[in-house]
Amino acid sequence: MEQEIRQINFAFMGFGHVGRAFARLLINRRNWLLKEYGVEWKITGIATKSHGTCIDHAGLPIRKILGSWKRHSNLENFHNGPVCASHTDFIRQCGADVLFEMSVLDLSGQPAATYIREALGAGLNVITTNKGPISTHFRALTKLARLRDVELLYEGTVMDGAPVFNMVRQNLPATRIRSLRGILNSTTNYILTQMEQGTPFESALEYAKNAGLTEADPRLDLDGWDAAAKLSVLIQALMGATVKPKDIERSSISEETGKIVRAAVRRDRRLRAVARAYRQGGRVIGKVELQELEIFDPLAAIRGLSNILIINTDTVRELAIVENNPSVDQTAFALFADLVSLLE
Amino acid sequence: MEQEIRQINFAFMGFGHVGRAFARLLINRRNWLLKEYGVEWKITGIATKSHGTCIDHAGLPIRKILGSWKRHSNLENFHNGPVCASHTDFIRQCGADVLFEMSVLDLSGQPAATYIREALGAGLNVITTNKGPISTHFRALTKLARLRDVELLYEGTVMDGAPVFNMVRQNLPATRIRSLRGILNSTTNYILTQMEQGTPFESALEYAKNAGLTEADPRLDLDGWDAAAKLSVLIQALMGATVKPKDIERSSISEETGKIVRAAVRRDRRLRAVARAYRQGGRVIGKVELQELEIFDPLAAIRGLSNILIINTDTVRELAIVENNPSVDQTAFALFADLVSLLE
Repeated sequence: MEQEIRQINFAFMGFGHVGRAFARLLINRRNWLLKEYGVEWKITGIATKSHGTCIDHAGLPIRKILGSWKRHSNLENFHNGPVCASHTDFIRQCGADVLFEMSVLDLSGQPAATYIREALGAGLNVITTNKGPISTHFRALTKLARLRDVELLYEGTVMDGAPVFNMVRQNLPATRIRSLRGILNSTTNYILTQMEQGTPFESALEYAKNAGLTEADPRLDLDGWDAAAKLSVLIQALMGATVKPKDIERSSISEETGKIVRAAVRRDRRLRAVARAYRQGGRVIGKVELQELEIFDPLAAIRGLSNILIINTDTVRELAIVENNPSVDQTAFALFADLVSLLE
Repeated sequence: MEQEIRQINFAFMGFGHVGRAFARLLINRRNWLLKEYGVEWKITGIATKSHGTCIDHAGLPIRKILGSWKRHSNLENFHNGPVCASHTDFIRQCGADVLFEMSVLDLSGQPAATYIREALGAGLNVITTNKGPISTHFRALTKLARLRDVELLYEGTVMDGAPVFNMVRQNLPATRIRSLRGILNSTTNYILTQMEQGTPFESALEYAKNAGLTEADPRLDLDGWDAAAKLSVLIQALMGATVKPKDIERSSISEETGKIVRAAVRRDRRLRAVARAYRQGGRVIGKVELQELEIFDPLAAIRGLSNILIINTDTVRELAIVENNPSVDQTAFALFADLVSLLE
């Protein structure tokens, strides 16, 4: 049976660890995409903050770009198309059907929200790992996507490659989420569980920084902003309430936290940075707080970089999903899973 | 916008706790199914082992049947259609588009496998919670479904309402499962964790029996057959190898196990009935065995009736799914989730 081949063009906004891991995954799954979905793809544009921008409507030589990638690589060398005055100009000129938005977290959600709006407005589907714009501009962006009849997908914004949004949307029909709780930030969980074993705060933080685990600004992790942005996306996408990161009560971890961690261990309990959301009257309340948990609490068993999300529903009661020691490849997989949803 | 209404007819094979909970769920979600999928449904047949059989092509009065249900109810009173000489005759006469097969576990997989084969052969979609026929006749039944271009769905065979098969199929594209491990049998886990706290084996088993937690024959739980049947379905559906329940090494729990449980607790460890599967050469090996686990093993944290499954993949590394204290409503939800997959 002859299958019609669909040609799809991709553009990348951002080409850091996640973008490059995703490009490698796309290459590895080229045959699979062709066989399962009859899809041939090319990357027609890559825009970055510090490595320049390139467009080639015939398709960029992505293997060559990856193969020769260095800290100071300049993408302009691969440019073969219209001159772009800005990133919004890039979006209009790149000739893509899908924009993968993978720029770094900024609490304001900008400039990423502007790029996503621009792309949706121009009729591009958008797939993002960026919790900044999704948490701060959820309603406006999802509404615009519906209006333009394109998709806005964001599985990678929470728990990397673990299917959170896709699981609820695709596997839990007619289900209302009453409340949820989890550990959503790997850096603070890593530091807390290191401190349990006696490692000082500074050494644990240093290790996390060197391993590339922290956000560009580690205060975003330590002050609970990263967890708050993720919780905000969960609340808006799964509980239907507009709760932005700034509406979420947060607590910070610091060197002082070490004492509380060790006191908890002496009582055979564990300190965890718990993100939770619950309904109160017609509202949803979101909090990221340090809680001392019983040793048998499923959150107490989450150590190191692992994450957990427990949802309480009116259909399957409590369901937990745990991601063990994720890496950048898991975030790249979230983009891939969203792409496959788009193709269905 | 006018939506075309689809009329779908359901038949139930089995009308025990699960069947009745599913009927109630269907009634509760009637408006949702109409609104989201434009589907109107009726139940045209119910066949049971000890409550008789009834068919009515105009739709059985399901609210009335549920409302007046008693231990000795006889469904024949609601019969208004062709005479059925047998359950296979029922399948041919019931006029359904979807057969929900919910009869009790029998290790041979019979007679359920025959009913499912009969239904698929007659062009009915089949949705089942019955691990017996799926584990023993997986290849033949899935092949027949493909051949007849109908669906055979079985989410409820493992971990009740937690999305296992649907999650892997729908949310983890192009993913290979390398290995998996979990706690799949609630009864033995309940008994093991009760014995940890000093409850004698017999009392724990008695409680589980009275609460309706055990299989009709509790030896199916205690000797690992229930877990082996579930593991067999996982291996065949997710790892692509034909490993039947009889190919799975099992260990039993009994009064004697209490000593081992308490010895483990004294070492700050936990005894669990672990089901696991791994690849060896070109084969997949499945085992259900008692293992003494470190206190921080995610399986050690699973107490009471809860279940866990951890899959190790080539895309998202390790992902765990935990279902807390499921009840019959969760099994009913699995049937509902499969029904929604079918409608998509």
